Amino acid sequence: MAQKPSIPKGTRDFSPAEVVKRNYIMDTIKDCFTTYGFQPIETPSFENSDTLMGKYGDEGDRLIFKILNSGDFLRKVDDALYSEKDSGKLTPKISEKALRYDLTVPFARYVVQHQNEIDFPFKRYQIQPVWRADRPQKGRFREFFQCDADVVGSKSLWQEVEFVELYDAVFSKLNLEGVTIKMNNRKILSGIAEVIGESDKLIDFTVALDKLDKIGEDGVKKEMREKGITETAIEKLQPLFQVSGTASEKLALLKDLLSSSEIGMQGVQEVEFIVSTISEIGLQTAMLEIDVTLARGLNYYTGAIFEVAAPEQVKMGSIGGGGRYDDLTGIFGLKNISGVGISFGLDRIYLVLEELGLFPETVSANTKVLFINFGEEEAFYAMKAVSKLRKEGITAELYPDATKMGKQMGYADKRNIPYTVLAGGDEMQAETFTLKHMKSGKQDAVSFTELRAKLK
Amino acid sequence: MAQKPSIPKGTRDFSPAEVVKRNYIMDTIKDCFTTYGFQPIETPSFENSDTLMGKYGDEGDRLIFKILNSGDFLRKVDDALYSEKDSGKLTPKISEKALRYDLTVPFARYVVQHQNEIDFPFKRYQIQPVWRADRPQKGRFREFFQCDADVVGSKSLWQEVEFVELYDAVFSKLNLEGVTIKMNNRKILSGIAEVIGESDKLIDFTVALDKLDKIGEDGVKKEMREKGITETAIEKLQPLFQVSGTASEKLALLKDLLSSSEIGMQGVQEVEFIVSTISEIGLQTAMLEIDVTLARGLNYYTGAIFEVAAPEQVKMGSIGGGGRYDDLTGIFGLKNISGVGISFGLDRIYLVLEELGLFPETVSANTKVLFINFGEEEAFYAMKAVSKLRKEGITAELYPDATKMGKQMGYADKRNIPYTVLAGGDEMQAETFTLKHMKSGKQDAVSFTELRAKLK
Repeated sequence: MAQKPSIPKGTRDFSPAEVVKRNYIMDTIKDCFTTYGFQPIETPSFENSDTLMGKYGDEGDRLIFKILNSGDFLRKVDDALYSEKDSGKLTPKISEKALRYDLTVPFARYVVQHQNEIDFPFKRYQIQPVWRADRPQKGRFREFFQCDADVVGSKSLWQEVEFVELYDAVFSKLNLEGVTIKMNNRKILSGIAEVIGESDKLIDFTVALDKLDKIGEDGVKKEMREKGITETAIEKLQPLFQVSGTASEKLALLKDLLSSSEIGMQGVQEVEFIVSTISEIGLQTAMLEIDVTLARGLNYYTGAIFEVAAPEQVKMGSIGGGGRYDDLTGIFGLKNISGVGISFGLDRIYLVLEELGLFPETVSANTKVLFINFGEEEAFYAMKAVSKLRKEGITAELYPDATKMGKQMGYADKRNIPYTVLAGGDEMQAETFTLKHMKSGKQDAVSFTELRAKLK
Repeated sequence: MAQKPSIPKGTRDFSPAEVVKRNYIMDTIKDCFTTYGFQPIETPSFENSDTLMGKYGDEGDRLIFKILNSGDFLRKVDDALYSEKDSGKLTPKISEKALRYDLTVPFARYVVQHQNEIDFPFKRYQIQPVWRADRPQKGRFREFFQCDADVVGSKSLWQEVEFVELYDAVFSKLNLEGVTIKMNNRKILSGIAEVIGESDKLIDFTVALDKLDKIGEDGVKKEMREKGITETAIEKLQPLFQVSGTASEKLALLKDLLSSSEIGMQGVQEVEFIVSTISEIGLQTAMLEIDVTLARGLNYYTGAIFEVAAPEQVKMGSIGGGGRYDDLTGIFGLKNISGVGISFGLDRIYLVLEELGLFPETVSANTKVLFINFGEEEAFYAMKAVSKLRKEGITAELYPDATKMGKQMGYADKRNIPYTVLAGGDEMQAETFTLKHMKSGKQDAVSFTELRAKLK
C-alpha cells in the first residue's frame, strides 16, 4: 500500500551536495587529528543500557533512546510489576540496550575494556553519530555527528597547548579566520568561590556567572542573590565583572583576587603556562582569550575549559568546546586516568561556512563529462572511452538511454556537468570525439589522447 | 559504582588499526563510485516504523530493532490491550521508530520523498551502518556497514555493463585479483520454469536450484520432487546441470532450451549483450561468468542478478551482489521507476584482504616521529618544531611528560613510531635535533630543515 513517505522529526536526509560538504569538514578535521597523532576508534551505535544510564543526570537519562528487546519481550516481565503500568519501572525490564548519547562515555568504556591493549598516553579521535530524544528545534537534531579528540593517561599541560593549536589548525585549514578560543580553568572558579566564602555554592555561582553574556552583570547578581549568595560575597566578585584588557592584565587581576586560594592560584598558573606558550609558538588565524565567566559542564571538568566562538559577524555561538577531566574512567572502575579533550560542532561549522561562502568550489560530487547516447553502436564507442577515462580517475558517465539530445543536454545542465561529448557516426569513422564546453558552448573535435588531456 | 564494561553481543569496537583498514576499503569503494558518477546520500539511522515494517517479510520484521517511545510511553496505551500482555500487539503502541535494516528501503523512501529535487536517472551511493537482531555468529553481526550503489530511472542495459566494470574497478584497485562476477537473469529462470511447465512453482524451483553448490545435482532433484515438480519437468532440466564451457557455449545451450519462451529468450539476449560488451571492453582482473543456478532474492529482482565470489583459494563465499529490480519505489507510491544496483560486503572483503595479506603497509594510523620530553624548556624547544612539522602535514608528537627516557622510547617502540627526536641542552644551544631511526638505532644531528626533509 502506498504511504506518503517521511522521516522521524529531528532527523535529516542528506542530499549529495550536503554529504560532500559535510565530508569536506570531517575530512579536514580528520587530517588535522591524524597530523597531531590522534588515532581513530569506533564504538557500537548502541551500548548496554547500564553503560549509559546514570552518566548524564536525570535529564540525560530521559533523553537516551532505548531499544526494545527483541522477540517476546513481555514474557519475562513479572505480572505484579506489569500491572502497575508504570513506564519508568517497565523500561529496564523490556529494554537492555540504548543508542549512544555522546562519544565520551563510550570512550571511557572502551579505555577500561581495552586497557591492556592500549599504550598510554592514548590519543584517540572518534567521529560518529549520537542520538538524543531532545525536542527538535533550529540547529538541534535527534541524530547528529560528534567529532571528538581526547588524550587519556597524562596530566601534562602540553596537551592543553596542543589542543589550542589543533583548534587553530582545523579552522585555519577550513579558511574560517577569526575564531576565538575562549579558555578558563575550573580551579580558578573554585578559587573564586573560595575567596568569596561560598565554596559550598560553587555550582550555583558558576551557573549564574556563565549567563553573563545573556543576562548581563545585574542579572547575574540577581540570580546569585536568589541562590543565597551573600552581598559581601557578591561585592568581592566586583573585579571579575571588570576583567578586560590583555591576557597579562587579566592574569594580574586574577593573581591579586586569588592570592589567598591555593587551588585558585594553581588554576592561574595553568592558564598562564598555556597562554605564554601559545603566544611564543603563535597561532595561524585563531585568537586565544581568557574568559573567567566560562563555566561549561562544571560537574565534569576539573582543569582547563575551552569553548570556541565563531567569528563575530556570524551569530552562531559555540562551534567547539572541551576541557580537562581527572576521573573519566572511574565510573567503569579504572581510577586516576586523567584526560583532556575537545570536540567540534559539525552542524554549526557547516552553517558558518555556508553563511560566509567558505566551501571551496571544488567541493562537489560532480561528474566532469557526460557522453551523449546516440544509439547502441555509438554508445559502445562512447563506453569504451568512458571506461578508459575512469581508469585515469576522470569522473565520466554515459547517458544510459538514447533519448532526445535535448533531454540528455538538459540532464548535463541540471547536474552542472561542465563537459559533454558528442560522438556519432562521423566521429566513429574519424576516431575522434566532439567535446563541448557547456558554459561557453564551444565545441572541438579531438582525439582520445587530447580528450583525456583536456579533462585531466 | 564500578561496572565491568562490555558491549552488546553482535556489536564490535574497532581499534585504530582496524578503523584505518576499514577506511582504506571504504575510501577505495567511494573513489570508484565517484569516478563512475555516483553521488553520495545519507539517510537517518532510524525511520518511522511503517517505512520499514512489512518490507522484508515476517522474518525481517522480527529482526528489525525497534526504538521505545520517549517519556511515559504507556500513557496512551489502551487498558484492554495492555492487559493482554501481548508483545506483538503492544509493540506498535509503544514504538514508532526503528533502526534501518538495509539501505535499499530507505533509498526507495528517499527517492519518492525527494522526487522533485532529483534529476533522473539518479546514480546514488550510500555507505552507512545497518542493524539486524539476528543471532550473532562468525562473520554475522548485529551492526554492520552496507556499501551500495544504485541507478534508478532507466532500464538501459548499459548500467548492468557499468556495474560489472565497477566491480572489476574496485577489486582491481584493492589488488584483489581473481574474483568471479557471477551473473544470471531472473527472466532466464522464469523462462526455464515456463518451458518445463512449472511456472507456478518458480520460487520452489529456483530455491532448490540455488543450492546446487551445497547439495549437488541429486540433492537439487530430490528437493524439486519434494516440492511437487514433476519427473518430466526435472528431465527437461537435465541440460542445465551440464551447463559448462565458455559463455558462448552456455548461451547456445540456453537459446536451445528456451527457444519457446519469450521471457526466457529476452533474458538470454540481455545476458548476451552484457557478456559481449564486457568482452570487448575488457576487465582488469575480474572474471565474468554466466551462472544459471544463481537465484538470490528472487521476489525482489526482475532482470540481471549478480554475485561476486572471492578468489577460490579463500573460502569466503559471496563478497558482493546485486541486480535489477523493476518496481522498488512502488511501495511508496511512485510506480515504474526501474533500478539496478550492487553492494559490497565490507566485513568479508576485510577478511579476504587480511587473509591474503593485501592491505598496503602504508595503511596505518601511525605517527612518523615522537619528540622525547626532557623537561619544560626542552619540551618547549621540541614543541615549536613539532608545531612546524605538523603545518607541513608531517604526523609528529611530543611525549607529554618528562618521564624516564626508557619509558618514552618504549612508547615509541610499542606504537611502531619509526623515528624519535632527542633534543636536550646541547641541541638547543646548537639549534639542532638528534634524529634517531628506531629500527637501525642510527642517530644524526640535523638542522630543522634537514629534519623536515628527512621526515617528508
